[in-house]
Amino acid sequence: MAPIITMTTDFGLTDPFAGVMKGVILSIAPNATIVDITHEINPQDIQQGVYVIANSYGYFPKGTIHVCVVDPGVGTERRPLICEAGGHYFIGPDNGLFTETFRREKNAVARVITDRNKMLQNVSATFHGRDVFAPAAAHLANGAALESFGPAAEDIKAIDLPWETRPAPDLIIGEVIYIDRFGNAVTNISRSIVEKTARDMEKNEFGVDFSAGTIDGILPNYSSAEDEESPCAVFGSWDTLEIFVKNNDAAFIYGIETGDEVRIRVF
Amino acid sequence: MAPIITMTTDFGLTDPFAGVMKGVILSIAPNATIVDITHEINPQDIQQGVYVIANSYGYFPKGTIHVCVVDPGVGTERRPLICEAGGHYFIGPDNGLFTETFRREKNAVARVITDRNKMLQNVSATFHGRDVFAPAAAHLANGAALESFGPAAEDIKAIDLPWETRPAPDLIIGEVIYIDRFGNAVTNISRSIVEKTARDMEKNEFGVDFSAGTIDGILPNYSSAEDEESPCAVFGSWDTLEIFVKNNDAAFIYGIETGDEVRIRVF
Amino acid sequence: MAPIITMTTDFGLTDPFAGVMKGVILSIAPNATIVDITHEINPQDIQQGVYVIANSYGYFPKGTIHVCVVDPGVGTERRPLICEAGGHYFIGPDNGLFTETFRREKNAVARVITDRNKMLQNVSATFHGRDVFAPAAAHLANGAALESFGPAAEDIKAIDLPWETRPAPDLIIGEVIYIDRFGNAVTNISRSIVEKTARDMEKNEFGVDFSAGTIDGILPNYSSAEDEESPCAVFGSWDTLEIFVKNNDAAFIYGIETGDEVRIRVF
Repeated sequence: MAPIITMTTDFGLTDPFAGVMKGVILSIAPNATIVDITHEINPQDIQQGVYVIANSYGYFPKGTIHVCVVDPGVGTERRPLICEAGGHYFIGPDNGLFTETFRREKNAVARVITDRNKMLQNVSATFHGRDVFAPAAAHLANGAALESFGPAAEDIKAIDLPWETRPAPDLIIGEVIYIDRFGNAVTNISRSIVEKTARDMEKNEFGVDFSAGTIDGILPNYSSAEDEESPCAVFGSWDTLEIFVKNNDAAFIYGIETGDEVRIRVF
Repeated sequence: MAPIITMTTDFGLTDPFAGVMKGVILSIAPNATIVDITHEINPQDIQQGVYVIANSYGYFPKGTIHVCVVDPGVGTERRPLICEAGGHYFIGPDNGLFTETFRREKNAVARVITDRNKMLQNVSATFHGRDVFAPAAAHLANGAALESFGPAAEDIKAIDLPWETRPAPDLIIGEVIYIDRFGNAVTNISRSIVEKTARDMEKNEFGVDFSAGTIDGILPNYSSAEDEESPCAVFGSWDTLEIFVKNNDAAFIYGIETGDEVRIRVF
Repeated sequence: MAPIITMTTDFGLTDPFAGVMKGVILSIAPNATIVDITHEINPQDIQQGVYVIANSYGYFPKGTIHVCVVDPGVGTERRPLICEAGGHYFIGPDNGLFTETFRREKNAVARVITDRNKMLQNVSATFHGRDVFAPAAAHLANGAALESFGPAAEDIKAIDLPWETRPAPDLIIGEVIYIDRFGNAVTNISRSIVEKTARDMEKNEFGVDFSAGTIDGILPNYSSAEDEESPCAVFGSWDTLEIFVKNNDAAFIYGIETGDEVRIRVF
């Protein structure tokens, strides 16, 4: 079966950077199947990369190789990593990009990529996606052992992520972590903490407070909203609370941004 | 031969939604060839989806599976469909997305997707592209029979589309149905109705009236325009009349929008 | 091994044009591997296409077929070409799109595509990407000989490109030729001319003058910049001088545009 290599980068689709990486991969591993997860991570936005990777890799088959390049430190001594976690492979800079993925999977094993024979002959100081990470993915797809890329990597860097908290028995506080194309404001408040709070409280009414107002209740889906103006809440496809406006752009209409606090009251 | 699965959605390319659907497909049908038609349908714009699908599928080989997701009603009781028409397969919500395709192909057969074994184990209320439509496409690519997905679907939903009319022997009235990347304003006025009108009238001069002015004649190609400012008309790649400005953005310059009326006079 | 076909166009990703070309290719050559280099060349911007193609094709394996469509003259008598240079194949309009590639590779051989059996049955006047270039690529991938497409093409069109000059022993003058997604302003000043000038002068200090100021020195990588506001210089992934701001958008902040003059002083 052809190995699958996914790509998650901040390179955009206007420049030929992602295409060139694919050329490098196919030069080494001609039968790889390459899939774009996205190339539109905001430039240098490692935290956005963290959420996209953590909520995507699990939908690919085990054995998939995920190349992830959001790399403001390219060309410095930050380490290039090749890792295995939960049966998936992850390749990218050691800057925290895999924080949430490795928290979920636990037991990640990682090596530093040092073997020059697994890089392009000339390694630039500005584009390791092309010169280091794409070749590494292709060699791994060809069957190279993880150990052959370089020494074990200790102390993989993790970044601080915002977590939802439950400062009172009937209150959950989180924040907006992602705005999607439709203007839905995705929070870090998981369905499970909301359901647990409801069980603990033996209540099942919810109020959602956000920067621009209050929402009564959590709807079962987008279409249940009564109009195309009011802010509403739903559990979205990442299984966390989202604020949305039916057939409209909630983030734009209500000026919602990532980092905005969101509170859920259970009563 | 590897089955081809195309994707036409309003998910955009910034979020990982399309990439995740590909992961689901390849998890079930590893040898599928996946092709993006576009993910940039305007959010919830079913009519735009109708035109894009109808003008694209025919360029793929018969047997191709077209997954189409513009789905404002996700999570409600609107039916998920799997259809066959003209030797192609179409998978998507029953909201009119296939109106023009099935008008052209006639004899579409459709089933409602109800078999839970052909969906992801957990079906969210907000992302059936991932949980229902992508798995269905993959199972179909693997050889599952149409009948195995669920019961026959009667009364497939169609939406009203604007049609060109010929209210006088020398006059055709239509409208702008699509603005492309170059700013060309594509209308629903087919080459065939224009040619028939010319034959009936035994005339071959044309005047094109649109929201911002009048155009004399229909050019054979974009380059025949005399300057890079004047609005011109040509039959475009969908074989309908387009208003364009040579090497320039006609829709922007002349403020043309979809829905604007366009008239062709034959004299 | 599956033949690789790359695509570089100005069609964008919103319209279905690129997707339809892939359908045409796969209808004729079902086992082709298709890779997007970019579809976001600025509309009709042949010079941008020249740089993207010349800096991308070499990262693909020999034998790759590169379909390149930036084609303001579509439908006129401008010739459709199929070429071989340096072991790669290039298909596109004869309008200068391959100027830099063929300057580097030398000895390009080219044919005019005239064989109607290697086009779609109906050839429109507005979309030769679909009707002429995609089918040609697929037939070539299937093994058709270059000679079978049509007669030899003499005098392939080349466009004037801006070249860096060295008007004084210690001075190099070039210009910005490309702005990338990060706002880095890529110039046409090659690392080799800078290094040669330094050797000739027996000096190794550099000053970079551009439209909005002066930069002291050339940094080894993006991260070496001291702050996230000052303009800095580095040799980028095309091995030419780039002006950048660390983790920021230099072109936006300093109003840099393609065509802006850049000077390097060696002292």
